[in-house]
Amino acid sequence: MAFRKFLPLFDRVLVERLTAETVTKGGIMLPEKSQGKVLQATVVAVGPGSVNQKGHVLPVSVKVGEKVLLPEYGGTKVVLEEKDYFLFRDGDILGKYVD
Amino acid sequence: MAFRKFLPLFDRVLVERLTAETVTKGGIMLPEKSQGKVLQATVVAVGPGSVNQKGHVLPVSVKVGEKVLLPEYGGTKVVLEEKDYFLFRDGDILGKYVD
Amino acid sequence: MAFRKFLPLFDRVLVERLTAETVTKGGIMLPEKSQGKVLQATVVAVGPGSVNQKGHVLPVSVKVGEKVLLPEYGGTKVVLEEKDYFLFRDGDILGKYVD
Amino acid sequence: MAFRKFLPLFDRVLVERLTAETVTKGGIMLPEKSQGKVLQATVVAVGPGSVNQKGHVLPVSVKVGEKVLLPEYGGTKVVLEEKDYFLFRDGDILGKYVD
Amino acid sequence: MAFRKFLPLFDRVLVERLTAETVTKGGIMLPEKSQGKVLQATVVAVGPGSVNQKGHVLPVSVKVGEKVLLPEYGGTKVVLEEKDYFLFRDGDILGKYVD
Amino acid sequence: MAFRKFLPLFDRVLVERLTAETVTKGGIMLPEKSQGKVLQATVVAVGPGSVNQKGHVLPVSVKVGEKVLLPEYGGTKVVLEEKDYFLFRDGDILGKYVD
Amino acid sequence: MAFRKFLPLFDRVLVERLTAETVTKGGIMLPEKSQGKVLQATVVAVGPGSVNQKGHVLPVSVKVGEKVLLPEYGGTKVVLEEKDYFLFRDGDILGKYVD
Repeated sequence: MAFRKFLPLFDRVLVERLTAETVTKGGIMLPEKSQGKVLQATVVAVGPGSVNQKGHVLPVSVKVGEKVLLPEYGGTKVVLEEKDYFLFRDGDILGKYVD
Repeated sequence: MAFRKFLPLFDRVLVERLTAETVTKGGIMLPEKSQGKVLQATVVAVGPGSVNQKGHVLPVSVKVGEKVLLPEYGGTKVVLEEKDYFLFRDGDILGKYVD
Repeated sequence: MAFRKFLPLFDRVLVERLTAETVTKGGIMLPEKSQGKVLQATVVAVGPGSVNQKGHVLPVSVKVGEKVLLPEYGGTKVVLEEKDYFLFRDGDILGKYVD
Repeated sequence: MAFRKFLPLFDRVLVERLTAETVTKGGIMLPEKSQGKVLQATVVAVGPGSVNQKGHVLPVSVKVGEKVLLPEYGGTKVVLEEKDYFLFRDGDILGKYVD
Repeated sequence: MAFRKFLPLFDRVLVERLTAETVTKGGIMLPEKSQGKVLQATVVAVGPGSVNQKGHVLPVSVKVGEKVLLPEYGGTKVVLEEKDYFLFRDGDILGKYVD
Repeated sequence: MAFRKFLPLFDRVLVERLTAETVTKGGIMLPEKSQGKVLQATVVAVGPGSVNQKGHVLPVSVKVGEKVLLPEYGGTKVVLEEKDYFLFRDGDILGKYVD
Repeated sequence: MAFRKFLPLFDRVLVERLTAETVTKGGIMLPEKSQGKVLQATVVAVGPGSVNQKGHVLPVSVKVGEKVLLPEYGGTKVVLEEKDYFLFRDGDILGKYVD
């Protein structure tokens, strides 16, 4: 997989957005405009963490595989092997889903 | 409940706004425009706290179940299981109601 | 009293503005526009203080019952039990009146 | 005196501006517009000082009675017992006159 | 090579962008406008690192020869021996490709 | 002299600009517009230095009598005994002339 | 030389830009507009370094005589003995040329 070979730097987190619902439960296809913006994503790679003034690394707060909630705006789209991913700063991720 | 499965990150606090009064004491229904903005909310989930430069966690100042007063602006709406919640930074919550 | 049950967070201070003079010494009622903005207030509740980077609390510099001078702008109006109060950051209060 | 009963908070300094020259040496009255802005003032009350991140107080650099030079802009006008005073941050006062 | 003789200062990283695809797999030449912006680059020189408040050097997080992903905007173009290079702050580089 | 009685506060430096050349070497008077802005000045008084977060004073880097180069913009004009002086922050002075 | 007598303050670096090519290799004079902006310069004087919060001096990273690469914008032009020099903050210099 693409993200295995890509290592974010510092406190950056690489995520893959969940696919939007394109068909209603009743089977009707939704035009792209009606599809809600997908804010849920899966963490696919994490940076080592930010470095403080003393040179110590502060690890990121999420792990590969965790499902997170993204803010509506922000993030940087990166294309790895023709697939869209997004980079977010660890501190910008709103929360994560736990069992 | 939805919020049990969602864990805010850092110093974020997930709250549920109290429902607005939609009927006057005399029984008259209020149009949506006449309903005051509800600034009181109940804390439903809290992040572990912000992380300082040395990597120590500073816990948030409110607890799940506490009733808080929100600022009029700010906060991020998040939809969990088709219900509206709001995320606020711990430092942006104005105060809490105690007995 | 309302403010007994409301606890400001961090370095916030809840104050109640003194009532404006609405009648001149000669007994003439002043229209609202002619009434000066009241900048004097009484402290009714104080937060525990701001938290520094090490997690230590720095207490606020005013106490409940003290009469303070507010800046002309700023502060957040909060309504508690249908009465108007104002929240100010401790550092924004200009000074206090002492005997 | 009014300022004896008013205590500025933190690093604020209460000053009283010197009165502007309203009459020329030749005895001609100056219209208000021709009077220069008075930037010299006398310190009438000082706050205890600013509080650093560790909670230590850093005293202000001027004392009651000292004659100081104010910046042209800034400062907050406060009215105490119907007399105008001005509050400046200690760090905004340009300098003081010494013998 | 030019970059051997140029030493970036502080936390700056000198990179050389990979050449854009100018011909499709089918052999058709692409006009410049259709060529995607190349965000992949090779590190050709790195600064010693940023200097913190105590004078200690915090080394950069990439090494000469590593393949990195650049942000879409930012960076400073520098021409060394008539060849284009780009300087980026270490913290602005999004990530690196590892085997 | 006026500046002997004025003490700048913190890291402020009081300077007197050198007089502009108003006559060419050939004896022709220059209109004010043709006179270059004088950026050279003599230090006439210095503050004790800025105060850091721990309350320690960091002395200024110039001494009374030294000839300095001022930035083109900035500084605060102060009039002492009907003579123009300028206050600059120590850190804004570009350099000094040494023998 | 002029720069021997001028000492930059703090982390400022005085540089002299290399002269632009005004004649092509073929001997044709270039109009000023066609001459590229010269970003290479020689360090002619350096300040003692910036002072951190504890009063310690952090020396600059370049030495007198070194050839450096300047950013396209920024810097302060200073005229010393009718010759143009430029002052740059040490941290704004992009890199240096080493053998």
